[in-house]
Amino acid sequence: MTSIHTIIPAGGAGTRLWPLSRRAFPKFLLDLTDSGSTLLQATEARLRAVSASITVVTGRHHAAEVARQCPETEVIAEPSPKDSMAAIGLAAAVLHRRHGQCVVGSFAADHAIRDTAVFHDAVARAASAAESGFVTTIGISPTEPSTAYGYIRTGEALQEGVLRAEEFREKPDAVTAGRYLSDGGYLWNAGMFVMRSDLLLAALAELQPELHAGLTEIAAAWGEPHERAVVDAVWPALPALVIDRAIAEPLAERGRVATVPADMGWTDIGDFAALADLAPRSADVEVDAPETFSVAGRPVVVVGVPGAVVVEMDDVIMVTTREHAQNVKDAVERIGDDLR
Amino acid sequence: MTSIHTIIPAGGAGTRLWPLSRRAFPKFLLDLTDSGSTLLQATEARLRAVSASITVVTGRHHAAEVARQCPETEVIAEPSPKDSMAAIGLAAAVLHRRHGQCVVGSFAADHAIRDTAVFHDAVARAASAAESGFVTTIGISPTEPSTAYGYIRTGEALQEGVLRAEEFREKPDAVTAGRYLSDGGYLWNAGMFVMRSDLLLAALAELQPELHAGLTEIAAAWGEPHERAVVDAVWPALPALVIDRAIAEPLAERGRVATVPADMGWTDIGDFAALADLAPRSADVEVDAPETFSVAGRPVVVVGVPGAVVVEMDDVIMVTTREHAQNVKDAVERIGDDLR
Repeated sequence: MTSIHTIIPAGGAGTRLWPLSRRAFPKFLLDLTDSGSTLLQATEARLRAVSASITVVTGRHHAAEVARQCPETEVIAEPSPKDSMAAIGLAAAVLHRRHGQCVVGSFAADHAIRDTAVFHDAVARAASAAESGFVTTIGISPTEPSTAYGYIRTGEALQEGVLRAEEFREKPDAVTAGRYLSDGGYLWNAGMFVMRSDLLLAALAELQPELHAGLTEIAAAWGEPHERAVVDAVWPALPALVIDRAIAEPLAERGRVATVPADMGWTDIGDFAALADLAPRSADVEVDAPETFSVAGRPVVVVGVPGAVVVEMDDVIMVTTREHAQNVKDAVERIGDDLR
Repeated sequence: MTSIHTIIPAGGAGTRLWPLSRRAFPKFLLDLTDSGSTLLQATEARLRAVSASITVVTGRHHAAEVARQCPETEVIAEPSPKDSMAAIGLAAAVLHRRHGQCVVGSFAADHAIRDTAVFHDAVARAASAAESGFVTTIGISPTEPSTAYGYIRTGEALQEGVLRAEEFREKPDAVTAGRYLSDGGYLWNAGMFVMRSDLLLAALAELQPELHAGLTEIAAAWGEPHERAVVDAVWPALPALVIDRAIAEPLAERGRVATVPADMGWTDIGDFAALADLAPRSADVEVDAPETFSVAGRPVVVVGVPGAVVVEMDDVIMVTTREHAQNVKDAVERIGDDLR
């Protein structure tokens, strides 16, 4: 089995999980499910068995905490957020310089996966397809007509358990999502990409030459005394792009993207409804209020609010319902800066 | 104008206002409206202008706090709760021994009245009717088909602004309450009774002889060295009765009860919906959540729960809505004894 060099871009605020997830201490740094591991630690542990190395790319202000949580992991600190393509591209460029042509895989720091064995099997298939030259994404078999994820339209089988990825589709409306589910042949795009480092860098050079030039310059200085100076000079001007749009979609048009469908109990823990499903913690007393969820330092009593979500932090109390969980981000836009 | 000897029975847990209102510190001892006065203090202040004396009857465990809040008021401490008739009857018996025949008036400790001038006018009319021999209740002109109050069916005019009270009606169902409102001729029974002390005691002697005998025995010992011994010996066996049923209803059947209709912005602050109307305190941030109400020591953010009620105390957080405010009492039955 091909071992991959794993890249974990650890950014993203997780504002839908505010006030648990905070700007200074976002979702991936938290043990949201009370498992004893933070989401980042669980991600690292899950990938350890299939990885030749693990690199976390995170913001400078989170680098120390990431290093504390994952002491055996290399940490690349970004001076500022530039979205997934710069983060993954920089790590891939550094890994390529260090190891030569290798298979790199990128996985979000803040998702949960119930069935690790299925995940490992999917990574192995994806690594094999990547060796064959495909940018390979692990796609999630949809369980509901979700409008929260992008979709991958699948094509013919390329290898056992590997399909061609015909096309990436943006987050659909509810009607379209329903059609995707009933039609079949669509997977959720969970942002997991496995590919050969040389092909990734070649695609970048062709499709995003400005970004490629900057990342190459930084990678050349990596580990050298002038690393910080080069990073600070080059990074701020890099374009902020997501990997899907920057290279995966154009390569899919050329038939160069594969996908491994996987049914592994995946969730991006996108909001409190998802968190409540994953790690139920009902209020202490529910009166006419089934399916509540609460995180608080004292007993919580809910009367007549089914699916209530109550989160108490030292500096704020947030109340919503599972049904309105997606709208928590709207509250974050309206609170004071000190509470974000 | 006749000055009355005012009796304020201060009992009742106010469990619908839990966790603000607690067994150890119930509603009447609280400044619920953030006015600078507790409900008891506001009640006392409102009555001072029309009262020859004011006596608060409360439980022994609240007597010290009542005396602290109302230092100029006489406090009668009950060894155990025996409902309104025993409390009012004991105070009336003590006042009758002290002052001879006088007009006594009983007013709840935990209601709010917006228009004090209208209230004073109603008390004056009630005192005049009481002098004429009627047990007189101040009735509230209904503003909605409430099912939370008992009703008084009114009859012919007896004096200016004084009607005969034909009948007391229990809390009605919604249909009946609607009919009362559309028919007219019904008032809310706010539990305010003004009457001559001699007639009250005579009615008790006839209708509740056991209670009358006990209260007379205690009143005879009042202020004497053996007061405590007599109270402790006699009080526990007294029947627990409400004044409405014990004497007002039977006397109404005989045409001996009058009522003074008053439109004075009265509320018994019966639940959080009523409190929110009386003293609005919305959450700090409302997203799709108009008409929220919160009492908390930190910012409160509500997303998607219109009319949310959020109360944070040191030992508990309670979440409900205005719509479900009446059901808070059901939660109190289900919480641990230490939280009551």
